[in-house]
Amino acid sequence: MSAGELERLSRAYVRALGEFIGPEVDVPAPDVYTTPQIMAWMMDEYENIVRKSAPGVITGKPLTLGGSQGRGDASAKGGMYVLKVGAKKKGVDLSKATVAVQGFGNAGQFALKLVKEHFGSKVVAISDTKGGIYLESGLDFDKLMEHKKKHGTVQDFPGAKNITNEELLELGVDVLIPAAIENQITGSNAARIKAKIILELANGPTTPEADEILYKNGVLVLPDFLANAGGVTTSYFEWVQNIGGYYWTLDEVYEKLDKKMTAAAEAVLETSDKYKVDPRTAAYVISVQRVADAMKARGWY
Amino acid sequence: MSAGELERLSRAYVRALGEFIGPEVDVPAPDVYTTPQIMAWMMDEYENIVRKSAPGVITGKPLTLGGSQGRGDASAKGGMYVLKVGAKKKGVDLSKATVAVQGFGNAGQFALKLVKEHFGSKVVAISDTKGGIYLESGLDFDKLMEHKKKHGTVQDFPGAKNITNEELLELGVDVLIPAAIENQITGSNAARIKAKIILELANGPTTPEADEILYKNGVLVLPDFLANAGGVTTSYFEWVQNIGGYYWTLDEVYEKLDKKMTAAAEAVLETSDKYKVDPRTAAYVISVQRVADAMKARGWY
Amino acid sequence: MSAGELERLSRAYVRALGEFIGPEVDVPAPDVYTTPQIMAWMMDEYENIVRKSAPGVITGKPLTLGGSQGRGDASAKGGMYVLKVGAKKKGVDLSKATVAVQGFGNAGQFALKLVKEHFGSKVVAISDTKGGIYLESGLDFDKLMEHKKKHGTVQDFPGAKNITNEELLELGVDVLIPAAIENQITGSNAARIKAKIILELANGPTTPEADEILYKNGVLVLPDFLANAGGVTTSYFEWVQNIGGYYWTLDEVYEKLDKKMTAAAEAVLETSDKYKVDPRTAAYVISVQRVADAMKARGWY
Amino acid sequence: MSAGELERLSRAYVRALGEFIGPEVDVPAPDVYTTPQIMAWMMDEYENIVRKSAPGVITGKPLTLGGSQGRGDASAKGGMYVLKVGAKKKGVDLSKATVAVQGFGNAGQFALKLVKEHFGSKVVAISDTKGGIYLESGLDFDKLMEHKKKHGTVQDFPGAKNITNEELLELGVDVLIPAAIENQITGSNAARIKAKIILELANGPTTPEADEILYKNGVLVLPDFLANAGGVTTSYFEWVQNIGGYYWTLDEVYEKLDKKMTAAAEAVLETSDKYKVDPRTAAYVISVQRVADAMKARGWY
Amino acid sequence: MSAGELERLSRAYVRALGEFIGPEVDVPAPDVYTTPQIMAWMMDEYENIVRKSAPGVITGKPLTLGGSQGRGDASAKGGMYVLKVGAKKKGVDLSKATVAVQGFGNAGQFALKLVKEHFGSKVVAISDTKGGIYLESGLDFDKLMEHKKKHGTVQDFPGAKNITNEELLELGVDVLIPAAIENQITGSNAARIKAKIILELANGPTTPEADEILYKNGVLVLPDFLANAGGVTTSYFEWVQNIGGYYWTLDEVYEKLDKKMTAAAEAVLETSDKYKVDPRTAAYVISVQRVADAMKARGWY
Amino acid sequence: MSAGELERLSRAYVRALGEFIGPEVDVPAPDVYTTPQIMAWMMDEYENIVRKSAPGVITGKPLTLGGSQGRGDASAKGGMYVLKVGAKKKGVDLSKATVAVQGFGNAGQFALKLVKEHFGSKVVAISDTKGGIYLESGLDFDKLMEHKKKHGTVQDFPGAKNITNEELLELGVDVLIPAAIENQITGSNAARIKAKIILELANGPTTPEADEILYKNGVLVLPDFLANAGGVTTSYFEWVQNIGGYYWTLDEVYEKLDKKMTAAAEAVLETSDKYKVDPRTAAYVISVQRVADAMKARGWY
Repeated sequence: MSAGELERLSRAYVRALGEFIGPEVDVPAPDVYTTPQIMAWMMDEYENIVRKSAPGVITGKPLTLGGSQGRGDASAKGGMYVLKVGAKKKGVDLSKATVAVQGFGNAGQFALKLVKEHFGSKVVAISDTKGGIYLESGLDFDKLMEHKKKHGTVQDFPGAKNITNEELLELGVDVLIPAAIENQITGSNAARIKAKIILELANGPTTPEADEILYKNGVLVLPDFLANAGGVTTSYFEWVQNIGGYYWTLDEVYEKLDKKMTAAAEAVLETSDKYKVDPRTAAYVISVQRVADAMKARGWY
Repeated sequence: MSAGELERLSRAYVRALGEFIGPEVDVPAPDVYTTPQIMAWMMDEYENIVRKSAPGVITGKPLTLGGSQGRGDASAKGGMYVLKVGAKKKGVDLSKATVAVQGFGNAGQFALKLVKEHFGSKVVAISDTKGGIYLESGLDFDKLMEHKKKHGTVQDFPGAKNITNEELLELGVDVLIPAAIENQITGSNAARIKAKIILELANGPTTPEADEILYKNGVLVLPDFLANAGGVTTSYFEWVQNIGGYYWTLDEVYEKLDKKMTAAAEAVLETSDKYKVDPRTAAYVISVQRVADAMKARGWY
Repeated sequence: MSAGELERLSRAYVRALGEFIGPEVDVPAPDVYTTPQIMAWMMDEYENIVRKSAPGVITGKPLTLGGSQGRGDASAKGGMYVLKVGAKKKGVDLSKATVAVQGFGNAGQFALKLVKEHFGSKVVAISDTKGGIYLESGLDFDKLMEHKKKHGTVQDFPGAKNITNEELLELGVDVLIPAAIENQITGSNAARIKAKIILELANGPTTPEADEILYKNGVLVLPDFLANAGGVTTSYFEWVQNIGGYYWTLDEVYEKLDKKMTAAAEAVLETSDKYKVDPRTAAYVISVQRVADAMKARGWY
Repeated sequence: MSAGELERLSRAYVRALGEFIGPEVDVPAPDVYTTPQIMAWMMDEYENIVRKSAPGVITGKPLTLGGSQGRGDASAKGGMYVLKVGAKKKGVDLSKATVAVQGFGNAGQFALKLVKEHFGSKVVAISDTKGGIYLESGLDFDKLMEHKKKHGTVQDFPGAKNITNEELLELGVDVLIPAAIENQITGSNAARIKAKIILELANGPTTPEADEILYKNGVLVLPDFLANAGGVTTSYFEWVQNIGGYYWTLDEVYEKLDKKMTAAAEAVLETSDKYKVDPRTAAYVISVQRVADAMKARGWY
Repeated sequence: MSAGELERLSRAYVRALGEFIGPEVDVPAPDVYTTPQIMAWMMDEYENIVRKSAPGVITGKPLTLGGSQGRGDASAKGGMYVLKVGAKKKGVDLSKATVAVQGFGNAGQFALKLVKEHFGSKVVAISDTKGGIYLESGLDFDKLMEHKKKHGTVQDFPGAKNITNEELLELGVDVLIPAAIENQITGSNAARIKAKIILELANGPTTPEADEILYKNGVLVLPDFLANAGGVTTSYFEWVQNIGGYYWTLDEVYEKLDKKMTAAAEAVLETSDKYKVDPRTAAYVISVQRVADAMKARGWY
Repeated sequence: MSAGELERLSRAYVRALGEFIGPEVDVPAPDVYTTPQIMAWMMDEYENIVRKSAPGVITGKPLTLGGSQGRGDASAKGGMYVLKVGAKKKGVDLSKATVAVQGFGNAGQFALKLVKEHFGSKVVAISDTKGGIYLESGLDFDKLMEHKKKHGTVQDFPGAKNITNEELLELGVDVLIPAAIENQITGSNAARIKAKIILELANGPTTPEADEILYKNGVLVLPDFLANAGGVTTSYFEWVQNIGGYYWTLDEVYEKLDKKMTAAAEAVLETSDKYKVDPRTAAYVISVQRVADAMKARGWY
């Protein structure tokens, strides 16, 4: 699709959706394959319709048109705050912890970089679609990026041992971060997972069968729609800044994100304990309860 | 009235009022006999009319639909900030002060609890519609709540002396908190009030004749529409959170409430000094002046 | 023009402009000869049209109708934050610096007062339309105001030496603050400027020819649309407060103004270094780039 | 009141009423003491609020701003169509009928002129506040207008006999047209009314006691809110023309007025026959029924 | 479903549909099982949302709330105008024509009545779900209605011969009016149809196979979405009256319906001749062409 | 310009103009170089902004999108009604009149055709840019069209005499119709005009000097903005049909056009007589008076 076609399609989408969206109606957020430029066209078209400034109609915009600081790495960043809560719960000292990351896309790269920055943890294994590597002394972000750029894969990294994606999952690390694709931890391999904590930065890396096994085995799964909620939370922050007309610095964004994510993670773990259910189920309980309460209060039952 | 009738009435009220209310027009707040549920129905009906999210149209909503943290005890809480200003003015050390509270409804109970929490003051007397009690060593909130629950009255509290509501008002305490009904301190008993400060958490507990006597006698009356303004102030905070789409923690609410109430109390006492009038009159002076200034600036004179 | 005529004119202006302005459309700010009263009439007329509260439609309003704290001296105040950045860049210790101020209008008076308050600098020279004065030991704000009030000019101030406006510009001070009219520093006198820093509180005090000479000579010119942007920035703050319905204290306004002005000044000086251009050119580069980026992102190229 | 005050008052009325009126909300019509000029100011102010052409917001406007042809004499004109229906019902041949008109205001003058034009009837008596006249051969409109203009009264008209207002009512004419003030035909004189038909162009000329007597005596009373409804009907026509943007000639207005008035009069007389009630009661029956039907259909019972 | 449930459902439907309907957006019309009362509730709910009179949002309303005269028999009435065009085309003298009507619901009854009133045609056969009757001398509407009411069927009508629904279709009449259900004239019986004209008041009485046979045999089929379009056309008239605020008499409705239906029927028959296709295909050609032209002109291709 | 560019330009024009146009604000009409397709794009874009059907925002649309019947030849058609009034005034029997038409564009062709159809007048001369022709027996529309099509000019028409455009103007005809370009009848040739009536279908064919001479010589000039007002009048009719949602047949359009044009022409000639001014001046008097009256009634003086 040419840029012109993409622009016309983006604008036509808003023309058709006009009645359904708005800063006080429904606010679309970016998803797979959308870019800040697409969001900008959509905002521009929406403003043509409403004849006023309305950046809050959509999120994921470029900074120059009302986007938020920190939108880029918000998912992985939010995962760090969740991981911190989980580690405290499991008694894991993150400053000494070993970490394995599956995936080397946006989320995987940020995870590699941020666990070091936030906690001083050591990432001993990482992978991409071609396979993974293991280095007991820990992987360096900058060097690995350079290697990947040059060779198109993380494999054959000097000093590291090549491993498969499957092997990576079953390493004897403290924290396992699936950051690639769906259905990686299943009924087949769940019993062999040795990590104490799984931080799901990918969407749906764990199957329901695996969830059950892991919960029985005492592995703490920090479920995807909690662990990678930093992205949509920052979209919410973008909207708040848009309707208030006042923009936050990167530090302010991170501070607010920390508060939101930490509170959410704590609520999930408390609910998990209270009802003796795995964290994913606990997160559903909380979500459904909130919607149900709101609907009941509105008289929509 | 059945819940169904109450809901239909609440909704019909908004349908009839449609043009007169709105987040940027006029924002109703809760009053006697309204509940968060009623506010929720009204908001829901209003949103049906305007076809968008508009929680700021009304305050006193449940938390789940955009209500504010701290709305429950906001009136008594605000009274504490006012009392602090008044105590400083009168040179009363609240950490050593004795307090008498008339009334054991919502406001009275919170007053009992909060003067201890905020200042460490000792509540030596309290009452309900059946009469009061006096305990020189100070009353314990939890025990008294239990006693009230079991016996339906505060009277006959172990170790305390039963007194009448009238006697309570005339005790030799530092702070008297009327938190019951109107017209308790009148031309008849005002001269016998021994408290240095009267914090009016009730509406209209003091008559104009009493006001005059108390002012002559140097008793500092912190008037009702200052002392219990914490409720409407928190309604205002609820609206601010609604239109900004960003919600405050309980601590943030209290911190902002402290600033607003303290500044208001100081302005009233300064004006009282400046014009040599009692605080109630001073508060009227400030209020009327603000409205008059705004009208004049608008060209509405 | 009578007050009645002025009011009718102000209202008619808004009636004619109705479609072009609005809190989310275009927000007029005060300019030469407008007063808060005029802004109040305009807001009132606008609210008649839109039938709701809309203080954010215009700025420069009286405090009582939604104006911001600190609007009065915002231009000079903002200049101080810019000066601080400039002084750091030039290695000037402002606590020991000497300052000459051209002009004794609003901006000049505030400059005299604020450089002392902010940095402890010494203003050794100041002028008005009749001429200037020089006092090596430094001028006192209160005494000078009194002198001006009594004699209608700053000249003949006890102990000071009378000088011309031209002489003032060429004094051997650390900081020169033109705060009067246009075209004071020109191709003719630029080479004789001895100040290390020029803070332009006036509009357009320096000609392009002078800019070139000063830049070559290493004089740091802090250009007008950066140096006196505190006024429009505070207008922006007023709008933010209006649309959020929440008002800031004077300290909060100053704190936010500091952040904005400091960041802007730093960006200008960095750009000046990066592209080896004078600060005025650098400021244009930044401004034009931002507008261009926004237009391009919108698809308006 | 000066014209300026009247204009400001008229505009302020609309500013205050803004939400309650509109071409599709509620449409004010002229009443006693309003003029087309007042209606024009109100329309102009309303259009300032809604920012578009909206002549249908109010009726009674000057022709040049969307007023209707025929608005001036619409009440008396409508009365003629009603009279025609009444005459048919009573078997009165209007071309040979004698008529007495009480009152010489707007309605009375038009009545005098129109019964001649429409039917060729002979007006034998007319009156003003000073008294009436009787001329068996019939009164001439133009001559009488001239006489009134010269002498300030209809009395002493050449050839005519002076009579009192009371005598006029009891004349042996076919049609009596009260066109002056309230309560002229009462329990005292109703039994002496000799007219076969009373056309009430005035408001409330007949008391309830009189109604009863007249009905028993077979006098057909064409009640005021039917007989003089031509005015409000033409206001309705004005609104129809305004919202359709298409204007009718005088003949078209009269033709449509004829249809509406004739149909209304026929419905009233049919209902009167059907329920054996006097026409006023019948008219109420129809009106109340229509409103009740509409409310019930809406679910407002 | 109780009346209360039906009302709540009707209102909820409009609350959910709010953005999609409107006098200038999309205007729902009645369909199977809707009643004027349902339409009234929907209009009332819509007006609550838009806060103004908006009868044009929906059609099929009761007369008292803006419904149109003639809505009840509009489908059959419109069919008469179409039949007239068809008869002229086929050279059938309707005043002497014989007619068979299949079905005795709303459409069938009106057809029976109207062909007599409009043209003086003779209905010799009619049927209901239990079977039909044949009477060479022609059926009388009033007597047949009475018979049906008493016996619950048209069969066994005095003097008439009982026939089956199938036999009715194949009678040697001039005009056949299917006014019952779908798929009555099929590939099986089409060749035996003796009528010169088929007026489809039912929806879909003729199958595509039958259409082909009838066209070959020279039978003129007036297709359903032309023949029974009188209903939706009158819905359109209702909307026109609503937005113009001016209501038509029954005669005016019929006159306008005549013009529209006649013009439509003529256009269909002309197109049928021009392209040598059966009338149903011709009607599609016209419809699709109009939509395509409009879309192309808008630039939506 | 490509069709795509033209469409984008047309749409962008409306996006920029959004606030200034609307069925109840300002309604653009076609002008030189606009086509129905351009109007269609503009309407489509406007409807995207307002999210509802709004054909009344612009006129000159294609029939399929709400254009009016008769828009094509409306200017020339309207001229016929004006000519009729003028002829009556001058005592010219149009059924026997001779006519010369300057110009063979849209207006000239229609003039040629319509004077014959309307009145039976004989067009004896016509011209195009290459020159004119004269045929005493009268020109035939169909034959001339064919000739023009074949030869690209009217000249050399069989049986006719070639003449120049200048000669055409000075022919001894009853009616002269300038239908080409500006400034044809000037101070130089006005005295030689022999026609009794000039119907200006072109814009500005007569100069002020010529106007004066013609008026003195008793030549009746029917001025352009009266004579060719049929076009804008039909634009007005288009808007009326759009806002009423009801469309007129061609005959209805012509009938209404006749009434409007005839009344306008009569008013102009009456005013011309009343004030003893030429018709052009009279038309200005009427126009300015109407605007002035409206402005005064609104209180805009």
